[in-house]
Amino acid sequence: MTGVKHMKWWGWGVEGVGFHWQDKPAFRPFVQKAVALDVKVPPSKPIAFEDLTVPAPILADELRETLERIVGLGYALTDDESRVVHTFGKSIRDLLRIRRNELGRVPDIVVYPADEAQVQGVVDAAAEAGAVIIPFGGGSNIAGSLEPIPGEQRTVISLDMGRLNRVLEIDEYSGLARIQAGAQGPDLEEQLNSKGWTLGHFPDSFTHSTLGGWVATRSSGMQSDKYGDIADIARGLRMVRPGELVVLRPLPSTSTGPSVREMIIGSEGRLGVITEVWVNVHRQPAVREVQAYFFPTWDAGLAAMHEIAESDASPSITRVSDARESGFSLATRKESKGFSAVAQNTLMNVLKRRGWNLDDMCLSFIGYEGTSKHVSYEKRLVGSIVRKHGGIGVGKGPGALYDQKKFDTPYLRDFLLDRGAAADVSETAAPWSKLKSVYDNTIAAANRAYDELGVHGWIMCHLSHSYHSGACLYFTFAFKHDENPVAQYQVVKDAIQQAFVDSGATLSHHHAVGLEHAPWMEEDISTGGVHLMQALFDAADPQGILNPGKILSRGFHAAPEEQASAAAAPAAAAPAATAPARKPAAAKRSAAAKESAPESTSAPESAPATAE
Amino acid sequence: MTGVKHMKWWGWGVEGVGFHWQDKPAFRPFVQKAVALDVKVPPSKPIAFEDLTVPAPILADELRETLERIVGLGYALTDDESRVVHTFGKSIRDLLRIRRNELGRVPDIVVYPADEAQVQGVVDAAAEAGAVIIPFGGGSNIAGSLEPIPGEQRTVISLDMGRLNRVLEIDEYSGLARIQAGAQGPDLEEQLNSKGWTLGHFPDSFTHSTLGGWVATRSSGMQSDKYGDIADIARGLRMVRPGELVVLRPLPSTSTGPSVREMIIGSEGRLGVITEVWVNVHRQPAVREVQAYFFPTWDAGLAAMHEIAESDASPSITRVSDARESGFSLATRKESKGFSAVAQNTLMNVLKRRGWNLDDMCLSFIGYEGTSKHVSYEKRLVGSIVRKHGGIGVGKGPGALYDQKKFDTPYLRDFLLDRGAAADVSETAAPWSKLKSVYDNTIAAANRAYDELGVHGWIMCHLSHSYHSGACLYFTFAFKHDENPVAQYQVVKDAIQQAFVDSGATLSHHHAVGLEHAPWMEEDISTGGVHLMQALFDAADPQGILNPGKILSRGFHAAPEEQASAAAAPAAAAPAATAPARKPAAAKRSAAAKESAPESTSAPESAPATAE
Repeated sequence: MTGVKHMKWWGWGVEGVGFHWQDKPAFRPFVQKAVALDVKVPPSKPIAFEDLTVPAPILADELRETLERIVGLGYALTDDESRVVHTFGKSIRDLLRIRRNELGRVPDIVVYPADEAQVQGVVDAAAEAGAVIIPFGGGSNIAGSLEPIPGEQRTVISLDMGRLNRVLEIDEYSGLARIQAGAQGPDLEEQLNSKGWTLGHFPDSFTHSTLGGWVATRSSGMQSDKYGDIADIARGLRMVRPGELVVLRPLPSTSTGPSVREMIIGSEGRLGVITEVWVNVHRQPAVREVQAYFFPTWDAGLAAMHEIAESDASPSITRVSDARESGFSLATRKESKGFSAVAQNTLMNVLKRRGWNLDDMCLSFIGYEGTSKHVSYEKRLVGSIVRKHGGIGVGKGPGALYDQKKFDTPYLRDFLLDRGAAADVSETAAPWSKLKSVYDNTIAAANRAYDELGVHGWIMCHLSHSYHSGACLYFTFAFKHDENPVAQYQVVKDAIQQAFVDSGATLSHHHAVGLEHAPWMEEDISTGGVHLMQALFDAADPQGILNPGKILSRGFHAAPEEQASAAAAPAAAAPAATAPARKPAAAKRSAAAKESAPESTSAPESAPATAE
Repeated sequence: MTGVKHMKWWGWGVEGVGFHWQDKPAFRPFVQKAVALDVKVPPSKPIAFEDLTVPAPILADELRETLERIVGLGYALTDDESRVVHTFGKSIRDLLRIRRNELGRVPDIVVYPADEAQVQGVVDAAAEAGAVIIPFGGGSNIAGSLEPIPGEQRTVISLDMGRLNRVLEIDEYSGLARIQAGAQGPDLEEQLNSKGWTLGHFPDSFTHSTLGGWVATRSSGMQSDKYGDIADIARGLRMVRPGELVVLRPLPSTSTGPSVREMIIGSEGRLGVITEVWVNVHRQPAVREVQAYFFPTWDAGLAAMHEIAESDASPSITRVSDARESGFSLATRKESKGFSAVAQNTLMNVLKRRGWNLDDMCLSFIGYEGTSKHVSYEKRLVGSIVRKHGGIGVGKGPGALYDQKKFDTPYLRDFLLDRGAAADVSETAAPWSKLKSVYDNTIAAANRAYDELGVHGWIMCHLSHSYHSGACLYFTFAFKHDENPVAQYQVVKDAIQQAFVDSGATLSHHHAVGLEHAPWMEEDISTGGVHLMQALFDAADPQGILNPGKILSRGFHAAPEEQASAAAAPAAAAPAATAPARKPAAAKRSAAAKESAPESTSAPESAPATAE
């Protein structure tokens, strides 16, 4: 055994943990209304592991022996389960494909280096052999950043960073910690907390994702208003590349030309393998509170978040759900009894008397950290803004509940999938002035896609991660699927992503690009921007062995006729010769075409291809 | 006339403005003590313009006509004064060389495009003709980012952005403004202020530098604690490249792979010409105050700044000068009279009675912005930290004085230069835990260099720009030079820069790299980091026409025998084949060698070379 824990190969999280609805009285009617699904239907079991068709590894004995020599016997694995666990992340597309025995190209060998020297050895051996390296952290990625490109002829090595999981050093006076890239959220927080420190980075994937993965995908945690995005938090790092090491010392700021740190952040393995990160760490605050508020409408909630961002207040969390997501939150509560139930009813009656339409009501969470005096000061500043926008504070109770449940939503997705409904998330960021139209356009686009598909679909949203000039909108969508769920998903996902970029928003605020969002890169950062990035990838990885096809490629939109030539070719093109990502109109057409030939995106032989 | 204003060709700022000491009674004895200079000596005049030896332009008629056609007659200039004004920035090295008629390679033609389309035309014409493009903003650069490399055989076009100086658009709800890259500080602030907004970016060069220049050199303003560095402020931009445009829309945050935005920020013209920037702008605050404090010692001041950064307080400016710089500030005050003089004497007597050694006393400025209530709250938080470290508040008076004088220091440099003393600045950033040793090592290194040179030298420092994990240390140094000032300067500058990188600090916090700091790039971002950046430059500019030699090269440390081959060769090397920047020991040797052959760095034919 390697000692490295992984999630279930067929779903989120650990075995034995799942979502239960029986103690949540509002849940069944809510799901019935939202996606026309009766959660009482008997669940289907995922495919049995023995029924998966796992292709034989493409692996020369010599390379296998070299890798075993580097990482040690027992740490270079070619068994089917290791390889399957390392094939995908945990997007709905990933779960649907694995449950339908559509594995595609599976990594040929999984290696677990023990330290940076072994990572260097593995990368150098791969370069020598012309094999592909895909770094693997916690495996929680939902952007298609982990799977080999279809038709890859070269050996694919999944490089699992799980053994590099230690906090190596804390510079207490500077508030900096040096942490190995394979450390998962709970592990590193535990090591930091034991000395009074916290990283303060809590993405939804926290329980099953790693520091290196956060950096490689530009992650953002729910307290980013205070602690910053991972790009702010990561002040220095080390990255292994073929034949060399990049070492960026921790610096609060520097003017040393184009930022190599910011080239590596978000690089998804395309420039090398991150082994260590110097991160800002903070003393655990004396007080940490999440207060809940209700707003009469979504517009009022958005306006309040905007005004908080503009004000002198600096809360750690700003979050407001739209009416649909607020309804969802209320529907997943356990049954209220006694005093709590009475209080709730009283509150609702008060709000009704105030003229609120309870169907429009929006739930908000604002987080505060610091000394108790500072928290009081901040709450007063925020409270007056909330009241100005017609909102009302409802105390710490719901916030504490949110804090407990925040990492559990992915389990609900598995629960729905067992019962025939596909659910996933898409998130974006935009300037404050565009958020309403981004929201309206995205909801409309998803509903048009549902109509087109003839399915009963659902989409809800919250605003989170506020900045001076804008914020993140986070959408969750679900529908009862038919026998071609991946093709149906593609139609909905395409519609949402296209609405983002068409409305002046980005293709993703913190979920990265991978193969899932690659088709929108050109619309997001412009053709010229893609050319610059492609120039970097081509020059930095002339062999095309570093997680090829991710970020810049046609992603899941590859036309079948283009794949054979594109899939296995190493990168060599000059910037001007780079094939462009698919244009929006073409993407829409592609999605429509897939609807009539619904297996085309999910069948392994016609999935992603790279334009390089 | 182009309508674009420039600084004096021989010094800082506008004609007719200069430093005067006669009304500052403590100034003459201070300078006598600091650098053994009597400011009463009659000043020397800079060389007359007619006495400069300006080489004939290397410029084919066809290219000149093409450029004239693009930008219009009168906006493509080849007269000597236009070319000389665009040869250098304003480092002490630049001023010394120009005053000594050591012009080196002078740009062949200066063009003033009126809009982005004309910038594209100029860049495309240059690419077609194989000519070099050097973008020019306000010309305040002190890192050697503006001069052509010596021996450049190709035509060099200085692309002056001065006509692109407008605020194009304000997105009021988002707090974003779209501003042309050639807008100078006062111009853009005036345009923003007239609508109630501010950029909040006030670098020392503010009065004579441009938005595009700030972005291209990773500038930071004195209120960066509140408004952020330019890398935080610039949310989107447009950049012209040969044959194409990079367009990055304004976004609060995004996860679209390696950051193209952060590749362009700090790129000093090596990737293209920035034409527009979307920046965060803020409502002018109701209250803006700079409070002054005294600390008994430098250590106490540093410790207080650290504790403020760690606390719940968030001032807009944190700054503390060491005892020498505090003495300098007091020596440049106008004579105190009446009540003010009495108050000062009283305060000094109080501090003496408290046991302070007034020679160790350190002056600090802390800035506050927001509502008056918020400013009061912040002042209370900071005040208690100041008192804890033995400091004392002395009110708004000195802060107001600092606010008025902050942009005047460069004029003092010209005053000293007229009288035989060379003065310049070097600044850096490091984690809090390293600041004391960075400071001690730098002071010691400068003093060793002075001893080596046998000159009476001075070095002083302040901390500014606080971050969670560290801060900037800003050194000002001066010495009475002999007949080889550039060689002497090189010895001191080398010693300071080497002390920075050897102590875990960066080669520059906000003055960029250019040719001045290029020799330390490998020690700062590692050989692997240099290779990644070189890969980007090589692939993005295969012709090597975009401000070649800046950031990555041997800079001013080129050995004479290496220049002939290196100077004019376009970039073509693969990352692994890139010639490394000079190693630290070699840099020290180089400096020592220059001392015995003192003209070698200042003579035009043996100045910077590029390793590409």
